[in-house]
Amino acid sequence: MSVSRQAGRLVASSPVIADAHFLAEADPYHPERNPNGYINLGTAENRLAWDLLAPQLHAPRRVTAEDTRYAPLHGTAALLEVIARLLSRCWHTDVDPEHLVVVSGATAALDVIASVLCDPGEAIVVPAPYYAAFETDLCGRSGACLIPVPSASCDGFRLDPAAVDRVLSDARRDGRVVRAITITSPGNPVGHVYAPDTLRALAEVARRHGVDLISDEVYAHSVFGPDRFVSIRHPLVQSAHSSQTHVVWGFAKDFALPGLKAGVLHAGNPEVSAAVRTLAYFAPLSTDTQFLLHALLTDTGWADSFIAENRRRLRMSHTSASRRLAEQGIPHIAVGAGFSLWIDLTGWLPTRTFSAEEALRRSILQDARVNILPGMAFGCAEPGWFRLCHTTDSALVQEGIARIGRLLAARGEGNRNG
Amino acid sequence: MSVSRQAGRLVASSPVIADAHFLAEADPYHPERNPNGYINLGTAENRLAWDLLAPQLHAPRRVTAEDTRYAPLHGTAALLEVIARLLSRCWHTDVDPEHLVVVSGATAALDVIASVLCDPGEAIVVPAPYYAAFETDLCGRSGACLIPVPSASCDGFRLDPAAVDRVLSDARRDGRVVRAITITSPGNPVGHVYAPDTLRALAEVARRHGVDLISDEVYAHSVFGPDRFVSIRHPLVQSAHSSQTHVVWGFAKDFALPGLKAGVLHAGNPEVSAAVRTLAYFAPLSTDTQFLLHALLTDTGWADSFIAENRRRLRMSHTSASRRLAEQGIPHIAVGAGFSLWIDLTGWLPTRTFSAEEALRRSILQDARVNILPGMAFGCAEPGWFRLCHTTDSALVQEGIARIGRLLAARGEGNRNG
Repeated sequence: MSVSRQAGRLVASSPVIADAHFLAEADPYHPERNPNGYINLGTAENRLAWDLLAPQLHAPRRVTAEDTRYAPLHGTAALLEVIARLLSRCWHTDVDPEHLVVVSGATAALDVIASVLCDPGEAIVVPAPYYAAFETDLCGRSGACLIPVPSASCDGFRLDPAAVDRVLSDARRDGRVVRAITITSPGNPVGHVYAPDTLRALAEVARRHGVDLISDEVYAHSVFGPDRFVSIRHPLVQSAHSSQTHVVWGFAKDFALPGLKAGVLHAGNPEVSAAVRTLAYFAPLSTDTQFLLHALLTDTGWADSFIAENRRRLRMSHTSASRRLAEQGIPHIAVGAGFSLWIDLTGWLPTRTFSAEEALRRSILQDARVNILPGMAFGCAEPGWFRLCHTTDSALVQEGIARIGRLLAARGEGNRNG
Repeated sequence: MSVSRQAGRLVASSPVIADAHFLAEADPYHPERNPNGYINLGTAENRLAWDLLAPQLHAPRRVTAEDTRYAPLHGTAALLEVIARLLSRCWHTDVDPEHLVVVSGATAALDVIASVLCDPGEAIVVPAPYYAAFETDLCGRSGACLIPVPSASCDGFRLDPAAVDRVLSDARRDGRVVRAITITSPGNPVGHVYAPDTLRALAEVARRHGVDLISDEVYAHSVFGPDRFVSIRHPLVQSAHSSQTHVVWGFAKDFALPGLKAGVLHAGNPEVSAAVRTLAYFAPLSTDTQFLLHALLTDTGWADSFIAENRRRLRMSHTSASRRLAEQGIPHIAVGAGFSLWIDLTGWLPTRTFSAEEALRRSILQDARVNILPGMAFGCAEPGWFRLCHTTDSALVQEGIARIGRLLAARGEGNRNG
């Protein structure tokens, strides 16, 4: 009695960050009722928008019998159509709904595109630090593996196409079969918004090496800084490589609906599109939820004002959290998108090692009772960096940062710059 | 530029039956507006229950912010709890919610359990005719392959554990690694309800060979004949093999909600359960839909009366369709469950071949403009059998059967018994 080797591998490599999330959520802080409870700043969840969403989600849902029946498993025509319209505006280019699929989450979308492009053992190059779940989402079922491209704190962990090029060249020289480059854009965990030049250079690297490019743009509408978001499919970027460029989007981040598991994938060419539809069969999205999402996007007045107001709140939340961090003397990278801050705790590590980073993480979780994720979870090359999510009640964020500040102070100023 | 070998295989083996479904649905018959339109009797979809469902689906859905957030990806505790209660009543044994997962459809549940049990190239033994999508659902992503166990019309295509035993022994003698036996119970496409003795004998075959047993019980509550449904986990069946017995259920058939993609999997032991949860991560169900399904099952008064009334309607629909078939001189197998009738058109095949069966299918689709599925799609060993789904508007079913009757009559009485 035992499970298959493929399932055993997945169980063994299951991401641990989910555990800390559910631990923290099971015993949440409350100023009066549970002052010693956990503060979860580990999960990239936008909790600032519920008042905007509730009226829409509570509105009577006049589904018809047809809406509950078998539908195309890659998404209903109606939902794909309105998503195409939304992405057309965002990308500043016409999006054909025929190239889109909707699946049950951005995770499923990443799994689908990785499985369509890669056979087991083949590689995907990812600039690091990268989205912590890439390892599971891109590799878990496809059998692909990741090759990280390190970036450095002295450069602000910026995306460097030349570094991607070098890693790709080295990998191929070593006989690795590389099938794709995957980025998050805007970046997660760091939060950078990429310039068209950078994206164009990256697409050119992919083209020269003949590998596909996957751009995970789940934060496309969650940009609040001075730099405008530019999709990999924006006319300013569009390269000779667009047919091998694929985009992931979803409702989890930009519409603050992570429970609804609505992931979107745009395939760059008909062959990939056909294969993507075939795989979408295994992870379809409930037509009931598709009906709701269609209603949200069809009401363009609501959708536009939601996006604008959400941006405003993200900016305020980011500013407020940044200020608190500064008050505690905790440095962070200046960014313009996303739900988190990439904070620098290297000064409080007794040694510049990942075991010291992990010890600090555990101390922050167990002693300060704050959940934040360590750089190691994101494949960061330098120990001591953490991702702190700020998109929740600002009093919670303040308390969380204050707790971290007190813990760091107690570790002794001696460690600072140590 | 090409897709992976694993994706290519899936595209190549994609089931064709979906095409006929969407062809028929795109141009539907209406007595006045489209008298020459298609009648779709190919899809096992229950269209008899909408009036019972609509009030529940239209009721205000008071989701809270929590209901839209990240939740355990194998199902919310609340939904798993009420599903466990429903299945406890159905199975006549206590079901622990810890052993259940909810995923985005019964297809995903089958994919998950097959991937947990099998590595590529390993085999699953299935009594034939079997559910047409088993090939894709069980093998598409897991890499497993099916070994059918033929059954004969002279035996009414009944499930024969001794035949399963022989096929399993032969396969293992040939060096095949067999990991599981999979059945549909009640049977699909034929519609048999299995006796406890038969199920016990089957579990004993699985135990003796040391293979797992997967029972797809998506029609568990759609039994209307004289024989009571008995789950593989019913105390009358329970064998020494229960820890290696896994059950698939869902809301598509028994609650007539196929669009909602709510599949359920009950794992027989903790190791399989842990692996199943890990794989559920890739095909989660929208928490919004989970909220709805929880509301449906929590209202036990509604759920019980839905199940009872639905059974009554299925019985009426089955009786009416059987009578129409008899009027047209079309034989079928007497059954007590499911949405379809297994009809015998062997008498109208010019030759007893699958190419003649396919020619007849195409003629029924193109000339009579009725979609029904041929035995070949279900791995039936004898050509000439078709699955006709009757769980839709009875006037449609009558018109569909009448059209088939006219087409068969036009093919000449000479072919009858030919």
